[in-house]
Amino acid sequence: MRHFISVNDVEDISLLVKEALTHKANPYLHKELGKNRTIGLIFLNPSLRTRISTQKAAQNLGMNVIVMNMDKEGWALETQDGVVMNHNTVEHIREAAAVMGQYCDIIGVRSFPRLVDRNEDYSEDFFNKFIKYSGVPIVSLESATRHPLQSLADLITIEEHKPKPRPKVVLTWAPHIKSLPQAVPNSFAEWMNKADVDFVITHPEGYELAPEFAGAAKVEYEQEKALEGADFVYVKNWSSYKDYGKVITMDSYWMIDNELLALTNKAKVMHCLPVRRGVELADEVLDGVDSLVIPEAANRVWSAQAVLAKLIRDNF
Amino acid sequence: MRHFISVNDVEDISLLVKEALTHKANPYLHKELGKNRTIGLIFLNPSLRTRISTQKAAQNLGMNVIVMNMDKEGWALETQDGVVMNHNTVEHIREAAAVMGQYCDIIGVRSFPRLVDRNEDYSEDFFNKFIKYSGVPIVSLESATRHPLQSLADLITIEEHKPKPRPKVVLTWAPHIKSLPQAVPNSFAEWMNKADVDFVITHPEGYELAPEFAGAAKVEYEQEKALEGADFVYVKNWSSYKDYGKVITMDSYWMIDNELLALTNKAKVMHCLPVRRGVELADEVLDGVDSLVIPEAANRVWSAQAVLAKLIRDNF
Amino acid sequence: MRHFISVNDVEDISLLVKEALTHKANPYLHKELGKNRTIGLIFLNPSLRTRISTQKAAQNLGMNVIVMNMDKEGWALETQDGVVMNHNTVEHIREAAAVMGQYCDIIGVRSFPRLVDRNEDYSEDFFNKFIKYSGVPIVSLESATRHPLQSLADLITIEEHKPKPRPKVVLTWAPHIKSLPQAVPNSFAEWMNKADVDFVITHPEGYELAPEFAGAAKVEYEQEKALEGADFVYVKNWSSYKDYGKVITMDSYWMIDNELLALTNKAKVMHCLPVRRGVELADEVLDGVDSLVIPEAANRVWSAQAVLAKLIRDNF
Repeated sequence: MRHFISVNDVEDISLLVKEALTHKANPYLHKELGKNRTIGLIFLNPSLRTRISTQKAAQNLGMNVIVMNMDKEGWALETQDGVVMNHNTVEHIREAAAVMGQYCDIIGVRSFPRLVDRNEDYSEDFFNKFIKYSGVPIVSLESATRHPLQSLADLITIEEHKPKPRPKVVLTWAPHIKSLPQAVPNSFAEWMNKADVDFVITHPEGYELAPEFAGAAKVEYEQEKALEGADFVYVKNWSSYKDYGKVITMDSYWMIDNELLALTNKAKVMHCLPVRRGVELADEVLDGVDSLVIPEAANRVWSAQAVLAKLIRDNF
Repeated sequence: MRHFISVNDVEDISLLVKEALTHKANPYLHKELGKNRTIGLIFLNPSLRTRISTQKAAQNLGMNVIVMNMDKEGWALETQDGVVMNHNTVEHIREAAAVMGQYCDIIGVRSFPRLVDRNEDYSEDFFNKFIKYSGVPIVSLESATRHPLQSLADLITIEEHKPKPRPKVVLTWAPHIKSLPQAVPNSFAEWMNKADVDFVITHPEGYELAPEFAGAAKVEYEQEKALEGADFVYVKNWSSYKDYGKVITMDSYWMIDNELLALTNKAKVMHCLPVRRGVELADEVLDGVDSLVIPEAANRVWSAQAVLAKLIRDNF
Repeated sequence: MRHFISVNDVEDISLLVKEALTHKANPYLHKELGKNRTIGLIFLNPSLRTRISTQKAAQNLGMNVIVMNMDKEGWALETQDGVVMNHNTVEHIREAAAVMGQYCDIIGVRSFPRLVDRNEDYSEDFFNKFIKYSGVPIVSLESATRHPLQSLADLITIEEHKPKPRPKVVLTWAPHIKSLPQAVPNSFAEWMNKADVDFVITHPEGYELAPEFAGAAKVEYEQEKALEGADFVYVKNWSSYKDYGKVITMDSYWMIDNELLALTNKAKVMHCLPVRRGVELADEVLDGVDSLVIPEAANRVWSAQAVLAKLIRDNF
């Protein structure tokens, strides 16, 4: 594995889950692996879980960690080629990425979509250029269209809690007051499509995910029907892909509460967090016994640790 | 000791001072104690001394340190229960604290009061919820009503410099142009009330501290009289508790200068810093031989190191 | 060496370059040197290369690193003496520097000029006071008038790539849309004036560097003539020293492109970065085989590591 940007970078997702659980069982076993290795964690957007869990994973492996909030501690980067930089971008990604690649053995990068121009966001131009010019292994800390460290943590959590070998997993759209990226549902979908699960996506019309992410997953527009027999309900808001970046509805009917949960097979409830209580998910569910949101967040450490360990082993 | 939020968490303050002085004499003796332990330092407000001294103390104990400026790198937290989160708070403290508790063995938190609603601030709702939901030992890096790491450093400094077994310590209000929290004087008062000192508080009328903090301390409204025979003068501004958060006077008469200091028993002068020169304290005092403000700040490292060492020993 | 503020702090620049190359060849050889030593990196202005390369250098030496963005995480510092601090500065440099000196063995500081009052900037008042009150070795991470870690990295790069024992080095002014400090060209000039190179400065009239930095360097106002026979072209914009802080011209004629480069002796091109593409330097040059900007930035690690190692050896 050279980079960790999407599920396609992973040869065997079951094996990666297994390795993550090994790290979880024994966090400091490989503390020599990252010795004298430096990871740079570059944030162009805010972060809580990703920042702390990845920093902790790297420290568990004995790495040096350098965190840089580029949006606050640095300056605006230019990504377009051939442009005369006489406006507000201070440095071109060609130089910035190449320089960071000189200082870091591995670089984690977070860069959200602008949600204005779909082609621009879905081209993953920023990430592709960062990979191209940095010259070192790149880990996505969430890009415009994917959040693979989250998806791997989700898969680990499902593996730990599944009541049967092939559980039914339902990704359900939830209401929100803001226009959010499709990165988490896209990424979850492409991981679930490769996992040994029965995967169903449910959302209001107009919220169809991009075909390359939805893949062969079953789409069921009736939420109640989708929830029937579910073993895991993965709750998440996203803005429209079709009518790009738009909020088509905020219908609170779609918020998961105990009544909707009763339709499932005693499903466990997941959410990547942060979650808007009373908007995306009812308090009664989040505070109930079937919520996995905290153990799911905890698994972010082992997801990151498995990925970093693999990158170190495969590249150095 | 499970948490370090107030003097009430400490069984024996003399013993804790003694332990702090042991760390000061030999800073790296317990470098194995914090091995593979992670402390998260979460700031909802700016910090200089607390940030650097606590980070250093943790590193002296061999801990991993993760610093997070939640107000800048993260987002606004909701603390109210049962609320529909359709406004500007992005994450509930129930999730945020619980998640950080999964990543960190100990969490230090700084959260200032809003100084608008006294009941809200004095309920210490934020800290209490953080403790409740994080599930790990919490160290106050200054809360709405207390600053115990500062108070412990103050006590260490008094212990080191006292000219007699039971010195006279005077906490004097000082002028300031802004409305400041009562956290430092509250905390200093509750520590001094438990220490082996003769403790007097002096301030203009209207600046009475909350009864639960002032305790049985003698309050003397005449500053000159209070200063008589003082061995230590602890200078600090605070806003009114009665007329909550208000600045009642900025009377520069209360600023400590050499003339006022001459009334004391060659008193040493203390201040938690940052200090407004020429407003709270005269240059001649800060630059004079009786100022302890720098050694007092230096003792913040040993205060934090003693507390962290005790939390590690008592909890893991 | 007590501090590293300018070339004048260095007894033998050739020896320091040699030591830097030793660190480059074997980065972790001296990992015990910085054990239990803490470096504070204090930024009053944004930074990318300086921040990451110095942090990495310190970690390579086994030091603890504490990064503090004073402008964002802290508050405004007062530098003037005897002032009544009843305005927006929260802490005097006398206290702030002294306190940091209690927590850190070495302090790196970045503080840009305001470019309003030449005397103020060129007095280096902030740095001088920081040195005076901190009481510990200070490393400049770029001051109002100098950037010595950059200059040392430049000299290392020239040493590695020079085609003959005494190469011709041309510092050429380049256009920019903003008013930039003279720190980089000042510093480069005072280092080149001490190095074994044939040093020429070229710029439009009105951009003369301060005499104490230009020294005995040859100034050639005709850029084309200056470039003749050059082995290294060091490209950089700066604002006027004479008409202080002003942008006199943005004449794009001065931008280095392949045509101008053809006049040289197959010169290598250097720039401290960040660089404005199409404004200071043509894409064709930056993307061409003669650009050294990335190896030059990479050498920032070894520049910092040599300086920190020397400070540790000479002071502790």
